[in-house]
Amino acid sequence: MPSYKLTYFNARGYGEAARILFHLADVPFEDFRMTHGDGTWEKLKEKTPLGQVPVLSVDGFEIPQSAAIIRYLANKFGYAGKTPEEQAWADAIVDQFKDFMGSFREVGKAHAAGKPAEEIAKIMQSDVVPARDAFFVIINGILEKSKSGFLVGDGLTFADIVVVECITTLDKNQLFTPAGEPKLVALREKVYAIPAIKKWVEIRPDTQY
Amino acid sequence: MPSYKLTYFNARGYGEAARILFHLADVPFEDFRMTHGDGTWEKLKEKTPLGQVPVLSVDGFEIPQSAAIIRYLANKFGYAGKTPEEQAWADAIVDQFKDFMGSFREVGKAHAAGKPAEEIAKIMQSDVVPARDAFFVIINGILEKSKSGFLVGDGLTFADIVVVECITTLDKNQLFTPAGEPKLVALREKVYAIPAIKKWVEIRPDTQY
Repeated sequence: MPSYKLTYFNARGYGEAARILFHLADVPFEDFRMTHGDGTWEKLKEKTPLGQVPVLSVDGFEIPQSAAIIRYLANKFGYAGKTPEEQAWADAIVDQFKDFMGSFREVGKAHAAGKPAEEIAKIMQSDVVPARDAFFVIINGILEKSKSGFLVGDGLTFADIVVVECITTLDKNQLFTPAGEPKLVALREKVYAIPAIKKWVEIRPDTQY
Repeated sequence: MPSYKLTYFNARGYGEAARILFHLADVPFEDFRMTHGDGTWEKLKEKTPLGQVPVLSVDGFEIPQSAAIIRYLANKFGYAGKTPEEQAWADAIVDQFKDFMGSFREVGKAHAAGKPAEEIAKIMQSDVVPARDAFFVIINGILEKSKSGFLVGDGLTFADIVVVECITTLDKNQLFTPAGEPKLVALREKVYAIPAIKKWVEIRPDTQY
């Protein structure tokens, strides 16, 4: 078995779906977590392929970009969809998630510029909230047509993991109202009930993002 | 052979890489192009899977999201990379392109809000230009290490097509300086010299985007 190392911050963020895939497949990996502000990232940055994390190292071969990493692992471990058409739909849902995350762009810029909390809250309302609502409409629409309760086909794919982790992080940051989103809550419960995922979710580091 | 239909606007944009893959593989497809403002899109929108185009129909099965569409076609036609690791790198480059395109977000909002040209030009300078420069640094770095002149491995992948089409559209809109980017120009020449692509590029509709 190859030697895997995932380099990311001590956060779920763009690294957690990869971690979940490793736990799901029961494949050992080094879960290397950097702490913001301790200088590790500043030193490591220029050694990464694209100046970004997460990076997945497979026997020393480095893969950047979170979606590329999880697609690679999902293909290896059997969670990328069962047909080319299912794979395309799993990919499309992950791209839709990425498009939604783009709505945090101005929030990130405001944070970096040290803007006051009220200004950041205003950008959250103008940018993130409508994008979240549009994303939820799409995911609800897909779940409405699903016979299995999963987003694609009759089993778990990396698209379910990405969407559920997104919900978890929105929820931890007062951007998700469980009572208003029964289908999304059901998806989260379904995914978190899978024994290997359940076990990991119970013991994983509790971080804000 | 399945019956393929690509639905998009009369633009290269997020549809062109798919068209190029069809021409490259010599696979017939319906190139359905809508004209902005003639009402076709407004009528079609709610019938698309996610309220967006491009959409690829494969014998009536619909796939949304441009990157999912081209990955699906690249896998079918043999342009997705020759190993799982090459595929991951092609994916990562396409994700990097998507991240760069995120820098047009505020430009799009300003256009939609009817903001004056000077204000849009200011956003281009603050958002798009630095993101473009960072993207070009990444692509140049990859090309520097390439032995084949292609971005991934020793042959063409959909990542080359996406990057070259991005360069073409930047160039058509005064956002690319060929003299300053010899490696990117060489990549574009290499890709456009492939006979099936050359033939299509010569006859394709000439649009601004």
